Amino acid sequence: MGDIDKNSPIGVFDSGVGGLTVVKELMEQLPNERIIYYGDTARVPYGNKSRETVIRYSREIAEFLCEQNVKAIVVACNTASALALEDLKKAVDVPIIGVVKPGAIAAADATVKGRIGVIATRATVSSGIYEEYLRAKRPDIKVFAKACPLFVPLVEEGLTDDPITDSIIHRYLDELLEQGIDSLVLGCTHYPLLRDSIARAVGQDVTLVNPAFETARSFKALLEEKGLLSETKEKDGQKPVNTFFVSDSPEQFRSFAGNVLSIRIGAEDVKVKAFVG
Amino acid sequence: MGDIDKNSPIGVFDSGVGGLTVVKELMEQLPNERIIYYGDTARVPYGNKSRETVIRYSREIAEFLCEQNVKAIVVACNTASALALEDLKKAVDVPIIGVVKPGAIAAADATVKGRIGVIATRATVSSGIYEEYLRAKRPDIKVFAKACPLFVPLVEEGLTDDPITDSIIHRYLDELLEQGIDSLVLGCTHYPLLRDSIARAVGQDVTLVNPAFETARSFKALLEEKGLLSETKEKDGQKPVNTFFVSDSPEQFRSFAGNVLSIRIGAEDVKVKAFVG
Repeated sequence: MGDIDKNSPIGVFDSGVGGLTVVKELMEQLPNERIIYYGDTARVPYGNKSRETVIRYSREIAEFLCEQNVKAIVVACNTASALALEDLKKAVDVPIIGVVKPGAIAAADATVKGRIGVIATRATVSSGIYEEYLRAKRPDIKVFAKACPLFVPLVEEGLTDDPITDSIIHRYLDELLEQGIDSLVLGCTHYPLLRDSIARAVGQDVTLVNPAFETARSFKALLEEKGLLSETKEKDGQKPVNTFFVSDSPEQFRSFAGNVLSIRIGAEDVKVKAFVG
Repeated sequence: MGDIDKNSPIGVFDSGVGGLTVVKELMEQLPNERIIYYGDTARVPYGNKSRETVIRYSREIAEFLCEQNVKAIVVACNTASALALEDLKKAVDVPIIGVVKPGAIAAADATVKGRIGVIATRATVSSGIYEEYLRAKRPDIKVFAKACPLFVPLVEEGLTDDPITDSIIHRYLDELLEQGIDSLVLGCTHYPLLRDSIARAVGQDVTLVNPAFETARSFKALLEEKGLLSETKEKDGQKPVNTFFVSDSPEQFRSFAGNVLSIRIGAEDVKVKAFVG
């Protein structure tokens, strides 16, 4: 890794638009870094796919980001982090982190009673990886995990504040509340977009943990440790220009970014890059 | 097409499991035909993808089915039929039909008042293809189309009979009922699996049209016309053995087929075939 240029961009990828919640945190915490984002909008969602397929898709994307000369990679998708991160570490030559470990650490810090809920895709829940990290940090912690497969389509449909969404949230979360959890990990990058509705459902005694914030903090520490923080400074309020690649529907991606996350992206900054197949 | 072997299998494809509703009709109406099915379970759903992506995926699959020596193809996915059928007709050398035209013809026959509702994926609705076929048949028909993007995830989650599904159905369909429709096309192969719940919501004055039934009838007529009906007869109640290819999660596919559609598929009859990419 000795010859990595610290002024190269950072790579971020997700199954679709959800990873933009991580981009938002990175833009705030690392304002001098240029971002190259990849959203696999043609093949979203990842959460119901098999481990093999998620690894295959993630490798294609990580290799593509490396071809763009990124200096480090953030896997901004919980499912890809849960299923593919170890494999990706072997496959690429730049530092790479996922969102699961930072999320787990934040949750372990947040809990008082040691009873933590984790909501995520079916694939992330089946992997058991949040439990693994949480127990490694604090072996007495009790983890209650629940797959919420309808949350991603609800977010993708823009129904982030809707009575139908509220009833689906109750369907999924009431059993976790009965277990007396005091912290809840939003273990899928789409879920922070339902934050207000989830907060209403769980009440103020449950702390919501968003791995995106913690991931940006860990990633900043990683770049510092490796001596890879960008030397380029903002000039006269000029932000670095980020580039976004998607595998399908760039216009839909831009409008989602603008409407839901207030991230303004110029039409010329979104490019289509689909993999053959 | 002169050298097509009439005893070859027929090819059927869909974005995932939904096309099995068409397989079920084909098995009943054409019991002597052997079926090779392809379900693109890794890349499901198709309904929110762009035209270019749906065409690319559909071509890969149709070409794969031709490599399996099928004598004819049924595109058992409304989105692929709506967006890719004309392109596929040019790309493959065997007869090929989709589900849209047969569905439109059945709806035009079913309506008395000439007011027809069409529910489908966003991509199918945007294509305007149901309107096109319906107006070609009866220019006085009024068509009210509505995209119902949450129906596919609800079906894939097995929530075919659930109060949450009922409220989502009302959200989508009440505006069609206000228009005084008397027929409703279930314009996505997943939707017939919601038939009972949809029927409850629309009441008995609205006829539900399932393109799967009509497609199997049209396909049988097509095989007859081309002299391509199989000469192999069932022997002692032995059904022909069908083969199912999926791009991901064969076990999930088998259990869905068994539980939801009562189609029993042996583990050895489901194979994984993913496209590179």
